[in-house]
Amino acid sequence: MPGNSFGHTFRITTFGESHGPAIGVVIDGCPAGLELDLDFVQHELDRRRPGQSAIVTQRQEADRVEMLSGVFEGKTTGMPLALLIRNEDAKSKDYSHIADKYRPSHADFTYHAKYGHRDYRGGGRSSARETATRVAAGAVAKLLLKKNGISVTAWVSRVGDIILDKTHDQLDLSQIEATPVRCPDLQIAEQMETLIRQVRREGDTVGGVVSCVVQGCPPGLGEPVFDRLHADLGKAMLSINACKGFEIGDGFDSVTMRGSQHNDAFFSDEDGTVRTRTNHSGGVQGGISNGMEIVFRAAFKPVATIVQAQESVNETGDAVQVEGKGRHDPCVLPRAVPIVEAMAALVLADHLLRNKTVKFNNNGWKD
Amino acid sequence: MPGNSFGHTFRITTFGESHGPAIGVVIDGCPAGLELDLDFVQHELDRRRPGQSAIVTQRQEADRVEMLSGVFEGKTTGMPLALLIRNEDAKSKDYSHIADKYRPSHADFTYHAKYGHRDYRGGGRSSARETATRVAAGAVAKLLLKKNGISVTAWVSRVGDIILDKTHDQLDLSQIEATPVRCPDLQIAEQMETLIRQVRREGDTVGGVVSCVVQGCPPGLGEPVFDRLHADLGKAMLSINACKGFEIGDGFDSVTMRGSQHNDAFFSDEDGTVRTRTNHSGGVQGGISNGMEIVFRAAFKPVATIVQAQESVNETGDAVQVEGKGRHDPCVLPRAVPIVEAMAALVLADHLLRNKTVKFNNNGWKD
Amino acid sequence: MPGNSFGHTFRITTFGESHGPAIGVVIDGCPAGLELDLDFVQHELDRRRPGQSAIVTQRQEADRVEMLSGVFEGKTTGMPLALLIRNEDAKSKDYSHIADKYRPSHADFTYHAKYGHRDYRGGGRSSARETATRVAAGAVAKLLLKKNGISVTAWVSRVGDIILDKTHDQLDLSQIEATPVRCPDLQIAEQMETLIRQVRREGDTVGGVVSCVVQGCPPGLGEPVFDRLHADLGKAMLSINACKGFEIGDGFDSVTMRGSQHNDAFFSDEDGTVRTRTNHSGGVQGGISNGMEIVFRAAFKPVATIVQAQESVNETGDAVQVEGKGRHDPCVLPRAVPIVEAMAALVLADHLLRNKTVKFNNNGWKD
Amino acid sequence: MPGNSFGHTFRITTFGESHGPAIGVVIDGCPAGLELDLDFVQHELDRRRPGQSAIVTQRQEADRVEMLSGVFEGKTTGMPLALLIRNEDAKSKDYSHIADKYRPSHADFTYHAKYGHRDYRGGGRSSARETATRVAAGAVAKLLLKKNGISVTAWVSRVGDIILDKTHDQLDLSQIEATPVRCPDLQIAEQMETLIRQVRREGDTVGGVVSCVVQGCPPGLGEPVFDRLHADLGKAMLSINACKGFEIGDGFDSVTMRGSQHNDAFFSDEDGTVRTRTNHSGGVQGGISNGMEIVFRAAFKPVATIVQAQESVNETGDAVQVEGKGRHDPCVLPRAVPIVEAMAALVLADHLLRNKTVKFNNNGWKD
Repeated sequence: MPGNSFGHTFRITTFGESHGPAIGVVIDGCPAGLELDLDFVQHELDRRRPGQSAIVTQRQEADRVEMLSGVFEGKTTGMPLALLIRNEDAKSKDYSHIADKYRPSHADFTYHAKYGHRDYRGGGRSSARETATRVAAGAVAKLLLKKNGISVTAWVSRVGDIILDKTHDQLDLSQIEATPVRCPDLQIAEQMETLIRQVRREGDTVGGVVSCVVQGCPPGLGEPVFDRLHADLGKAMLSINACKGFEIGDGFDSVTMRGSQHNDAFFSDEDGTVRTRTNHSGGVQGGISNGMEIVFRAAFKPVATIVQAQESVNETGDAVQVEGKGRHDPCVLPRAVPIVEAMAALVLADHLLRNKTVKFNNNGWKD
Repeated sequence: MPGNSFGHTFRITTFGESHGPAIGVVIDGCPAGLELDLDFVQHELDRRRPGQSAIVTQRQEADRVEMLSGVFEGKTTGMPLALLIRNEDAKSKDYSHIADKYRPSHADFTYHAKYGHRDYRGGGRSSARETATRVAAGAVAKLLLKKNGISVTAWVSRVGDIILDKTHDQLDLSQIEATPVRCPDLQIAEQMETLIRQVRREGDTVGGVVSCVVQGCPPGLGEPVFDRLHADLGKAMLSINACKGFEIGDGFDSVTMRGSQHNDAFFSDEDGTVRTRTNHSGGVQGGISNGMEIVFRAAFKPVATIVQAQESVNETGDAVQVEGKGRHDPCVLPRAVPIVEAMAALVLADHLLRNKTVKFNNNGWKD
Repeated sequence: MPGNSFGHTFRITTFGESHGPAIGVVIDGCPAGLELDLDFVQHELDRRRPGQSAIVTQRQEADRVEMLSGVFEGKTTGMPLALLIRNEDAKSKDYSHIADKYRPSHADFTYHAKYGHRDYRGGGRSSARETATRVAAGAVAKLLLKKNGISVTAWVSRVGDIILDKTHDQLDLSQIEATPVRCPDLQIAEQMETLIRQVRREGDTVGGVVSCVVQGCPPGLGEPVFDRLHADLGKAMLSINACKGFEIGDGFDSVTMRGSQHNDAFFSDEDGTVRTRTNHSGGVQGGISNGMEIVFRAAFKPVATIVQAQESVNETGDAVQVEGKGRHDPCVLPRAVPIVEAMAALVLADHLLRNKTVKFNNNGWKD
Repeated sequence: MPGNSFGHTFRITTFGESHGPAIGVVIDGCPAGLELDLDFVQHELDRRRPGQSAIVTQRQEADRVEMLSGVFEGKTTGMPLALLIRNEDAKSKDYSHIADKYRPSHADFTYHAKYGHRDYRGGGRSSARETATRVAAGAVAKLLLKKNGISVTAWVSRVGDIILDKTHDQLDLSQIEATPVRCPDLQIAEQMETLIRQVRREGDTVGGVVSCVVQGCPPGLGEPVFDRLHADLGKAMLSINACKGFEIGDGFDSVTMRGSQHNDAFFSDEDGTVRTRTNHSGGVQGGISNGMEIVFRAAFKPVATIVQAQESVNETGDAVQVEGKGRHDPCVLPRAVPIVEAMAALVLADHLLRNKTVKFNNNGWKD
């Protein structure tokens, strides 16, 4: 069972390497009748695009998306949607000097150990370039979710030691795109940007945290017992390059709490909707959404590509020095924001569809 | 696509409710020829069993496992292994008082919202009783891993504010089973046990952290790009009842580090094996194991069942009070240890098998 | 990827050997709210049961089914349904004489070649005993289909040279169960029964054809391009022991026709429903049901177990003689009828559910 | 669960419509290290290509394949292989006259019923144009099989009433490509071609049978109990446009035989290899290959597109006349040959890989 597909009912399969001819994604299972706004897909890709600001990698890629199938007269037909992005700025010469070297904390060694040979140009398939196809597919998922009143919003809540210690309802989320760093608190965003610039000058990199909130999600999404909604969200986040941690609701902080503090009391609001007074659970209970906002965070380690010289070995086991020369991000966080949103949207779209078959009414389902 | 299966090539499907006739698991894909030590499976179940010590739930279940298929003359045949555990102490009367009430932070409300009706007895399928079948299947996975030199070891590294701040190589892991709390540092274990007893007296519950180390794992396990080894480990942990967070290697702590600090330098050891000088990555790079020890942690919230009275609503939306009467755990951590190990073993066994088909040699695979 | 599961959304996993403790099936994905009539499940099992008449195997199995999970207060809960059948009349001594011999046209040799060792008792998992679990699961599928107005009916249309050359609308399908041979034309049934008795006296076996009609199926079931409805039906039939051929609609006879003869002209009936004047397609066009009756046939070879002595080899390759001693069917056709129905019902239930997610309406799917 | 993927471990996902920008396929799970001969892939596509001879559709498509990913320095890397074919001769104007009409025995009505709207140009995704991507993927599978000594060869054994009544060992299979009709008996091929030309002149179409033999397949491929090798082959064939029947070995003819006639006696040949004296089973026993040649046949109905006027209805249910104007095949059989081979190769490659994980040796699998 290969690992380049994600989702069950809204299912994507991605392909492509950093320096090959193209990257792309096939979405299978998108329902028919969805108005497919290709400009929105492009807009989402532009948010992830390299070269979009001074604090991200300067690789030049227009990332123009081409829709190859599955849309007729502006609407999805229920057939697979194939989206293609040509690689334009694939400078292979940047990488020849590391053809037989294992860059520390990259996938060079593990891919070689697993497959026997590898496309070393820009990391091949292990490059974060692959995430562009996730963003394209996630944009389609967002269009489907939007029709169902569901939105997904992420932002940078931490870079190194600089922390934005506010919840989404204490923030003006419309300010996320106001700065290149994608932190909605503009003062903290400035501090983060300053830190990223400083780290870049040092030829180094820095990690951080992306926070995400899903709004408008109805109760009922998620499946017992393995495909819990937050388990699938966790896998989705951890599958993003450089992500090393995931937590939902109070997450790791919940371990210091008592049950009497952590439990979210139910009440009926003025509309008769069952809600909880607090949301320590982060919108998911028993693995299934409870109608509250879904709140989670993903931790990203510092990018492995640094300019400083590092100790390593080559394919024959000899000690070598590795120096970063390719264009890279000093901090992956700003560009991780649309990727986190995309992966969350893919999980929610999948569970939205999966939830269509779980309840039977006595009249059957004659259409 | 229903959610009661886990894994692709070593694949399990579980069934059963807390107060139904039985729970069980079918393992499909276990290779033929494995000596199946049923006593070991029972031993693992005994580690998870309720009533095993004074600090866990006093529900009485022998959890005797019966092997129904897939073994002949002591060895697996390649056919599905079905393992059955009868429920013995299913006291339904304990739960009638909450038949139409939603217990805070349980799955009562979300299951009802999703399915329209539910087995309210002891939480039905959302009960942690279901995890016994994971432990049974995980024990078989451990037997397979053992034949390949791989072991999985977990312990309690935090209960509430009491933290065991040592890594596995600073600990005597043989002491894990020495105390009912399953923390290998006996002094800290005692503090943890004291805290758990105090919390229980208060009719409350407390959370914590389980740490886990996988030893002997060869390089090459894990699949690009979605089924990264740590993404599957993360999903596995987050699918366990009460788990709200997961991190691998330095995890959330890595966000404050620079790339130059976090990167793990490669070197060749005396045997010519490629290793890393540090292990900030936690044994996984690019989603694939690198031959170092795999190190991760899972955060568990305090158990939702508390004795104290809580505000809630019933199925018709009326305000009600809920009081815990069933037997439950004041702290899930000690019993979570074998569950964490089982889920990790299932992920590793699956990826061990998946890794058999990825590399082609020029002689083909004529058997 | 192991092979003991079938279906995607209505998904079954079966386990168990002919002479092990039990056989069983887990159904995952059955919608919540279905009234589960366990008597009907038992009734279907009784139709397949050995020993039910003089022309089938005389192995004595009550085939009592036990429901272990997934039902509460008479209705499905959306959780996995586990159904268990204990083996009662497992006479292992019948098989010791062929422990190391490969019976011709059985799976003895292929299982040994594949797995290295095998449960030789009664053929182990390769025994048709396994089909009891399909019938149990198929009965649940039939209950779901019935609520949606869909029925599945099979009968024996050929035994050896004796052919029932009538279509379902020329037959009184209520007479299928009137004779042990399950052919609704009572005169032809008598001829078939006579042939089966004669073949049994000769210590031999004979093959035949089962015909099946699905009535009440709405248009729209089936998926492009690989999971066509008839492709999944074909796989379902061919997965039954001894089935060697499948055809839908005019099947192999269609090859002699011209397109102008074979095409089914559309018209609107008095209710405005689109129908076809003929049904050469057998109710499926482009892989998707068109609302007409689905008509297919499955060919079964003569059972491999015969009393006559046969040439063969043993596990070490020595020439040996094999003689049938176990109890077996002289003709599998009568007992194949409920199995064919069960497998067809499983395919239809799966596609019924899969079809719930393919079309989007502009209001979204807010529940 | 959408239906545009096929296979489990060697898994393909296809996309594209007859008159959209492109069609393509992603192969996930092809092992690393396979020399990828793109010329061979193109050669296989040329065998299926329209316009290749006077007896097939005259649509002009070069069907040039572009490899987008997964190959580095001439070898597969273990990453997904994406193959793209641009549509060049997509004359949409040919189809506007049937935009709202349901062509008899096409998928127009069923797609509309299922999805609510459809790409009517050339049948959209239901067009046999989609099979080009199967041939491209199948060519890669053939390369993998070849390295393992396995070949797949198909030919036309029947067109209408003209039958080639010889088995593969009575034929010179090297003559298959000698005539445009792909029947290796040149005299019968001529009769078939004459019939096809006559049928075309009449504005009609005719069906037929493709026979296929797999040579060099080792024992052990196929999985109990649902994923039997011939069940997967059957599904593969029945998923091809216009295929209405499948049989393996003696197939439908086996129903008239006695077990004593049909059973294949085992013997050890001079090399000690276990073989069978006859091959009524067609190389598969108990769903698993037995090392003999795998022999099967697929029945194709006459193509639905005919020039003659036909009765039908439009989307609003009004009676209309439909006349074929597009370019089409009078007989699909010659072009079906490479498609049958491709689908068979995909099944075998998948089972070849799946078979790598089923047997455990006592030394484990330390690599």
